[in-house]
Amino acid sequence: MARNTRQRILETALALFNAEGEPNVTTNRVADELEISPGNLHYHFRTKADLIEALFDDFEHRMLQILSAPEERPADIEDIWFLLHVAFETIGEYRFIYRDLTDLCGRYRGLHQRFRGILRLTMEAARSLCEDLIAAERMDASPSELDAVIRNIALVSTFWLAFDQVHDADGVRPDRAAWQVMSLISPYLVGEARTLLQALADAYA
Amino acid sequence: MARNTRQRILETALALFNAEGEPNVTTNRVADELEISPGNLHYHFRTKADLIEALFDDFEHRMLQILSAPEERPADIEDIWFLLHVAFETIGEYRFIYRDLTDLCGRYRGLHQRFRGILRLTMEAARSLCEDLIAAERMDASPSELDAVIRNIALVSTFWLAFDQVHDADGVRPDRAAWQVMSLISPYLVGEARTLLQALADAYA
Repeated sequence: MARNTRQRILETALALFNAEGEPNVTTNRVADELEISPGNLHYHFRTKADLIEALFDDFEHRMLQILSAPEERPADIEDIWFLLHVAFETIGEYRFIYRDLTDLCGRYRGLHQRFRGILRLTMEAARSLCEDLIAAERMDASPSELDAVIRNIALVSTFWLAFDQVHDADGVRPDRAAWQVMSLISPYLVGEARTLLQALADAYA
Repeated sequence: MARNTRQRILETALALFNAEGEPNVTTNRVADELEISPGNLHYHFRTKADLIEALFDDFEHRMLQILSAPEERPADIEDIWFLLHVAFETIGEYRFIYRDLTDLCGRYRGLHQRFRGILRLTMEAARSLCEDLIAAERMDASPSELDAVIRNIALVSTFWLAFDQVHDADGVRPDRAAWQVMSLISPYLVGEARTLLQALADAYA
């Protein structure tokens, strides 16, 4: 029963943080929504920081799984496309983290370090995938071009949600985000990899 | 004398907002720093929102000048390179706006609308510059590729500073930001435009 309450608190907090922004939701608000006493919530999460950390644990666990999936063979375009979709779906589920990222990292120092870890792993995964494509002569990019692409992939992935919100909020669209990141790689693709991406693009449009 | 005080308040507020983040600086703190009374500051800016709006006025004025400079001839690579440097220097001077952009836009609704205007103008300027290059056969991109490039340019320009802060803060480097945006265009360049960009890249490195 206690375990169940803990899980319900996490789910409700996540939904409220996503809908209204983490800075605008107090732990009392979460308790109200669940119709439990603030003391009961306090029993499971002593502070709001503890609650946020538990949500970040779940998010981090899922992102690490996605980004460090074992590779049985060199990656292809479909693998990258699939990885991007899964990653952006997860980011969408925990979008409160990405909405006010600099603010959140400023207020919760521990999170900043851990988010940097996820970012580093994202860049390593992107590099590994691109290097597979280059080795298979499906991509043509110089080392300095590859560095720029990796950095742009990390930047666009991280701030896609915030950009949508500032520019013209229209909800979370993992497929659009995946496509936007793909567009950073596409000009460097050659031969059938380029044809394949065009087919994916047509299927998407 | 009153005019002078107003200007000094703006300069001090800008420096403090940039250094410590706008949410962490009160108007009393600005008055303290200037060694004037809170009442004196209040005489010039009734609320913190008024102070922020006045700073945003200056920023907006400079960005509009940069983004709507009259074109006497079709744009070339050097023109884009120059525009990017000037724009990122201005963004660096008003970096508090970009550091917590989603938060700032959420708290000051009027700013959100005006920032969207700047973003729209940025995308129009980027499109116009790229279309000049395409017309001069210095760039080769399909309409859907151009759309993706324009969106990536706006996203990378807007969140460059926030990314640096989350990833690995090392101060404001307009040249690095300009280079990062250039890398979004460079794979689409052809012929001597590509050679010229490589020369600029070497000069930068």
